[in-house]
Amino acid sequence: MKKTDSPTMKDVAREAGVALGTVSKVINNIPVGESYRQRVEDAIEKLGYHVNSYARGLKTNKTNCVALLMPSLRHPFFAILTDELTACLMKHGYRSLLMITNYDPEAEKKCLILGQQNKVDGVIALTYSPNLDVDGTIPLVTIDRHFGSSIPCVSSDNFRGGEMAAEKLVELGCGKLLFMRIGPRILGEADKRSAGFEAACRRLHTDYEQIILNDEDTEAPFYTFLSEHIHGGKLDFDGIFCNTDSLACRVIAFLAEHGVRVPQDVQIIGYDGLADYATGRYPCSTIVQPIPRMAEEAVKLLLDADNIPNPVNICLPVRYAWGGTTLEESAVQSIQKS
Amino acid sequence: MKKTDSPTMKDVAREAGVALGTVSKVINNIPVGESYRQRVEDAIEKLGYHVNSYARGLKTNKTNCVALLMPSLRHPFFAILTDELTACLMKHGYRSLLMITNYDPEAEKKCLILGQQNKVDGVIALTYSPNLDVDGTIPLVTIDRHFGSSIPCVSSDNFRGGEMAAEKLVELGCGKLLFMRIGPRILGEADKRSAGFEAACRRLHTDYEQIILNDEDTEAPFYTFLSEHIHGGKLDFDGIFCNTDSLACRVIAFLAEHGVRVPQDVQIIGYDGLADYATGRYPCSTIVQPIPRMAEEAVKLLLDADNIPNPVNICLPVRYAWGGTTLEESAVQSIQKS
Repeated sequence: MKKTDSPTMKDVAREAGVALGTVSKVINNIPVGESYRQRVEDAIEKLGYHVNSYARGLKTNKTNCVALLMPSLRHPFFAILTDELTACLMKHGYRSLLMITNYDPEAEKKCLILGQQNKVDGVIALTYSPNLDVDGTIPLVTIDRHFGSSIPCVSSDNFRGGEMAAEKLVELGCGKLLFMRIGPRILGEADKRSAGFEAACRRLHTDYEQIILNDEDTEAPFYTFLSEHIHGGKLDFDGIFCNTDSLACRVIAFLAEHGVRVPQDVQIIGYDGLADYATGRYPCSTIVQPIPRMAEEAVKLLLDADNIPNPVNICLPVRYAWGGTTLEESAVQSIQKS
Repeated sequence: MKKTDSPTMKDVAREAGVALGTVSKVINNIPVGESYRQRVEDAIEKLGYHVNSYARGLKTNKTNCVALLMPSLRHPFFAILTDELTACLMKHGYRSLLMITNYDPEAEKKCLILGQQNKVDGVIALTYSPNLDVDGTIPLVTIDRHFGSSIPCVSSDNFRGGEMAAEKLVELGCGKLLFMRIGPRILGEADKRSAGFEAACRRLHTDYEQIILNDEDTEAPFYTFLSEHIHGGKLDFDGIFCNTDSLACRVIAFLAEHGVRVPQDVQIIGYDGLADYATGRYPCSTIVQPIPRMAEEAVKLLLDADNIPNPVNICLPVRYAWGGTTLEESAVQSIQKS
């Protein structure tokens, strides 16, 4: 790849009629006399000079670049999170170095080292590797996974989300609930969804069962379980909480194929709140994660690291949204009235 | 943000008992005696020294970093393309600097300049700005948009895709076709979908109408048009080609609300081929863009820029995929037989 010559700092100094050091001060925001600053800025504009951020990175020990470690952009949760993180970083004058790990623990480790090699100013990571080497040489903020007291973590309020799902199903008339979970073997913040769901079921004296799988498993046991609980077109459960919208969509498709009606026979709530990109509709009733706020808080934690005395865990509020797979509240009210 | 001291090249030279220049040669892959190389590599491993890629970028005039300019990651086409581009670049030892422009022409211009400021080795861009300043100071490959003979461009074979949609609808028994398009005001490669569709309709002597809108418009005229063409629950058209899957999904939802059955009353084909992340199913019958190959070709064009005598346009083959909104070919055959 070829490059043509661009103006250098020396050209700017010559054009402005000032010393090279003065140009450097202006570029690095070090105070100089106002008339000098003006002359340098005019020369920069006239020559179309672009600051060489790499030279700058070496000098001030800042690169204005943050590495984002993501498992994949094929899942809209990660894609939208990356979109929001990048927008947020740009607002603060930082660029995103994007690293895709494909859920591979080895790739996660390599990417963390690559981050350090590139002398990024920090890393925001969503990882699954069981033994990641987070040695504190580089500022790190994690999403949805708590590495212990030295690393700040941002997540949605998974526990409250689980409670909310159980409470909503009970409020909408369900009496026999099922929780379905498939996810990484390593327990992360997201597993508090199950704890919250259980806590609410116990508090509300509501019957519930759970069926839990790991990502390495196939989902076949889910469908065997559901098949065994369908009798004459009716499911033994009248409310299901799935740990993701994605799982909820597959369960809904399976039930439709087996003649079980959603939401008339069984109501279903997912978790994530990812509206369809084409229609803007939720694919199912869901607990919505506040992705823009999660991105904002992660960036704030990373950039303000020096000003935050102790690494914190930020747990952001979630909300329930109707998406067609639960009864509408007005419908329930009219049933209760009649 | 704080950083602890990491070992320097000097520390490596001391540990290995060699000159600083020897360490530099090993790091930059310049031949040295094998025993020297071994000693330097051992010292690098022992000290946990990480190459400072920024210093390296200055020395060899390479940053091993490529800027990706994308409108948004909220649309799965851009998200999956970014995922594939990043994977491809990593395979070649390059990192992705991600820039999100939010479809804003001003942001697109700024991002191109930022790319130059960061001295990236090249830019892969998907842009809409009418007057982008692509001055050749930095290697550039565009996706879906042709900037003239000096900039290589990668796209799917949009013309053939349009033809394919018309041919398939006719083959499946449609006789009165409609083409619906909403997209940027600036015509890009994607507008060849319409040209291909028209060409095939003329060749096959098939009636067709077109309704064309720009992104700045609302889609209301589409729905007014469709409403005016519904008589007694029947649409005046029996086949529709939409320029994106996204539009096709909205049209399908509108027709469902108005009692028009898809595919029994009207068959619909979209363009993009974005399978649903949860179920893996196509949201509609569609012309599939080969996103992994588009990414691969864009990276190859960028990295091999010096070896390609003239900038080329790469136009990659598409295919039709059934997604529930057209009749299945077996169904059509049995109708024709009976």
